Amino acid sequence: MDTIRVTVWGEYRHEKSNPKVAEVYPDGMHNAIAAGLREGPGLTVTTATLDEPEHGLTEAKLAETDVLIWWGHRAHDEVSDEIVERVRQRVLDGMGLIVLHSGHFSKIFKVLMGSTCNLKWREADERERIWVVEPGHPIAAGIDDHFEIEREEMYGERFDIPQPETVVFISWFQGGEVFRSGCCYTRGKGRIFYFRPGHETYPTYYHPQVKRVIANAVRWAAQPPSPAVFFGNYKPLETIVPSNG
Amino acid sequence: MDTIRVTVWGEYRHEKSNPKVAEVYPDGMHNAIAAGLREGPGLTVTTATLDEPEHGLTEAKLAETDVLIWWGHRAHDEVSDEIVERVRQRVLDGMGLIVLHSGHFSKIFKVLMGSTCNLKWREADERERIWVVEPGHPIAAGIDDHFEIEREEMYGERFDIPQPETVVFISWFQGGEVFRSGCCYTRGKGRIFYFRPGHETYPTYYHPQVKRVIANAVRWAAQPPSPAVFFGNYKPLETIVPSNG
Amino acid sequence: MDTIRVTVWGEYRHEKSNPKVAEVYPDGMHNAIAAGLREGPGLTVTTATLDEPEHGLTEAKLAETDVLIWWGHRAHDEVSDEIVERVRQRVLDGMGLIVLHSGHFSKIFKVLMGSTCNLKWREADERERIWVVEPGHPIAAGIDDHFEIEREEMYGERFDIPQPETVVFISWFQGGEVFRSGCCYTRGKGRIFYFRPGHETYPTYYHPQVKRVIANAVRWAAQPPSPAVFFGNYKPLETIVPSNG
Amino acid sequence: MDTIRVTVWGEYRHEKSNPKVAEVYPDGMHNAIAAGLREGPGLTVTTATLDEPEHGLTEAKLAETDVLIWWGHRAHDEVSDEIVERVRQRVLDGMGLIVLHSGHFSKIFKVLMGSTCNLKWREADERERIWVVEPGHPIAAGIDDHFEIEREEMYGERFDIPQPETVVFISWFQGGEVFRSGCCYTRGKGRIFYFRPGHETYPTYYHPQVKRVIANAVRWAAQPPSPAVFFGNYKPLETIVPSNG
Repeated sequence: MDTIRVTVWGEYRHEKSNPKVAEVYPDGMHNAIAAGLREGPGLTVTTATLDEPEHGLTEAKLAETDVLIWWGHRAHDEVSDEIVERVRQRVLDGMGLIVLHSGHFSKIFKVLMGSTCNLKWREADERERIWVVEPGHPIAAGIDDHFEIEREEMYGERFDIPQPETVVFISWFQGGEVFRSGCCYTRGKGRIFYFRPGHETYPTYYHPQVKRVIANAVRWAAQPPSPAVFFGNYKPLETIVPSNG
Repeated sequence: MDTIRVTVWGEYRHEKSNPKVAEVYPDGMHNAIAAGLREGPGLTVTTATLDEPEHGLTEAKLAETDVLIWWGHRAHDEVSDEIVERVRQRVLDGMGLIVLHSGHFSKIFKVLMGSTCNLKWREADERERIWVVEPGHPIAAGIDDHFEIEREEMYGERFDIPQPETVVFISWFQGGEVFRSGCCYTRGKGRIFYFRPGHETYPTYYHPQVKRVIANAVRWAAQPPSPAVFFGNYKPLETIVPSNG
Repeated sequence: MDTIRVTVWGEYRHEKSNPKVAEVYPDGMHNAIAAGLREGPGLTVTTATLDEPEHGLTEAKLAETDVLIWWGHRAHDEVSDEIVERVRQRVLDGMGLIVLHSGHFSKIFKVLMGSTCNLKWREADERERIWVVEPGHPIAAGIDDHFEIEREEMYGERFDIPQPETVVFISWFQGGEVFRSGCCYTRGKGRIFYFRPGHETYPTYYHPQVKRVIANAVRWAAQPPSPAVFFGNYKPLETIVPSNG
Repeated sequence: MDTIRVTVWGEYRHEKSNPKVAEVYPDGMHNAIAAGLREGPGLTVTTATLDEPEHGLTEAKLAETDVLIWWGHRAHDEVSDEIVERVRQRVLDGMGLIVLHSGHFSKIFKVLMGSTCNLKWREADERERIWVVEPGHPIAAGIDDHFEIEREEMYGERFDIPQPETVVFISWFQGGEVFRSGCCYTRGKGRIFYFRPGHETYPTYYHPQVKRVIANAVRWAAQPPSPAVFFGNYKPLETIVPSNG
């Protein structure tokens, strides 16, 4: 099976209570993100939301998810610790995880990072310019040296995260801040990508480069399929000392 | 004040119940580690143990600790979550943390790492040879290209930790395993060093190179003292946009 | 076009002068490595050797190479500086590079690393056990927690390389050494993987796991193909200040 | 001996031909940088310049230099390859190296990095705001969450360097760019720090935070002095297999 199975998890609360958000994302942010992914090839995309039973993240659902995308904001505390631990175990076991924007304060991101994940922020309808600092990285494939988002919420350094394995993007904000906007990690066997853009009042998830980055990140975070094993004529000796564990 | 204030935390249980351990460390492992540190200059060393009130780690004690050393093994679960969180906050705020040997499974190390911290292990009185892979790193100062420990417990890869910022040492074990034995991290403002050697039944903490590495690590993990600030003739403009946060 | 175009470069000298090597690799080491890659899907594999005009690495050849594999040993100095610079430019421009074994002392590896690339070595027909330290990395796909090579040349730390972006494998040697055997780098847009095994007198390149690792590395190092660009309904403003450069 | 011996190397050409530069740095940029370092304790600071014999970097001079600071711009090509190689060997052997501003294109920086070290640039008297992204790093000691330089030359990403071991600072520029302005590396045993600010027409090297960062970097890059070796009661066995190399 060559398709990558993606589950887009959305908190799906702002859309129901804030008319401004509902106008931008009438079907919910998770469905807009999912629709963006479905524009490209090779992905099978479903969604899950906070208010579904088990937040839509049953053992069965996670078992058939290769990459989980996470958007949450105002209701981080309502995500049950049990589900967070379930997701964490799946990440450690190899499921990819893409954490978007305000998900920096989600329980799942914080337990995987170990630090406070604090940052500076400001809502001022300001311009964000996202620069590619690792142009050879698969997550930057198809992106020019930078792209712009006309209006976004500002996030600024110091972003209190462990030093990323790779920083793919750095954002410039009109008001004077910078931010490590695309950060790669491995935890256990799982690959994690934090991507900054996506405040609920802006149409960020319709932005073509934003869609492209998220799709790239899904492909990067998916465990590589194991092609047919090579057969060879080499026969190793028995091992000297059997290892426990 | 130029001295670095070190607190050596020991679980201090094996020594009281296992005569073999008591013979090797009659005053407890924490006191042996502390004595090693006191051989060198510039450190003020005290100890704390599990069975003291608040495990000896009161707010006041942590506030006057620059670097905390942690040795625990059989009683990780008896460390209270509240104290673990208190220690974590101090690390994020800048206190150094040196985690020794079986401390890889301590609550404090696991919450700071976010992964399982699993490893392979075997008790077989085997030889460990510790190779320096970053000879320019301060933690390797004064160590030749390798040193040996005659008999130790084996720890083997895969060690399920986040990719270290720097791997200073890699161990070779007689039975066929390798291990990343000296691993550097930053979490928040705090520096963390994991150092592998030190099973309770071996006299490892009397080993001169082991003592040297721990002392080096303390110096590396201590927040650098702020020397007198420079005064200059440069006057910046007012900032454009005040940052919140 | 979905295939990855691989060029296997071999020095091809030992095979012609040393009967022991000729017996192990009658068609040359480069052809053995190429044959291993052809067992798997998705790769178009050709070869080039030192004694061909321009070492077989013409501008045209490099232009149609996605990933270059490099094996050299006794004749590093005979590789022309001009060709080395040509290869370096292609790497910086995005070509993948897999450097094998004694290639640690090749001109191309040394100019890309900037350090001496020294290491310890010993020929003693000893056992090598290669441990996976990053099991979630694509280069370790399909490999168990370790594999063994019955007899190999020993390479030992300190391997004087820049700190790798990721260490995928660490080797244990029977005689007492360890080695970072699988090291990932990025230079410019190009991905580089150093893989230790492969002394000319051993049948290492017929070993099934060695073949698997090299094939995995080729897939990792190849620039990701750019799938169809997303089209969206988001129109960015004009940029504020055009950037030069 | 506790002092750190610093040599400030300056190209010292702009100052002699450009009245604007001469006005800002009447004694040369190298002397301004050296004067800044002399404001703090524990450093012994001398200078060297391009037009001295052997560029002022004799074997003897380098042998007694713990940390070398490098500022060059228009005359990179006039630095002899022999001296570059001499400096490189000293770095690999443990001398610290601080590369400033336009030194990104110096021969010594390029051979140590292996990549093109290209970047975007613009001279437009614009504001630079330098953000601390690793507040626990010794090079950021005493610096608030950011500092500003009123007018500077712009440097922008993609800065084509190997992924730094640690990025300490990221710059924001008024015109819309970002830059990794403080980058740490190790090559051989030597520590390298690249620090962006310092175009010749601006009084940047009188800026108090710039002076502080350079002084911090010198202390970080200096090889740690080896304190008295510990003596212990542990006697290792003979090694199993003597290592060559």
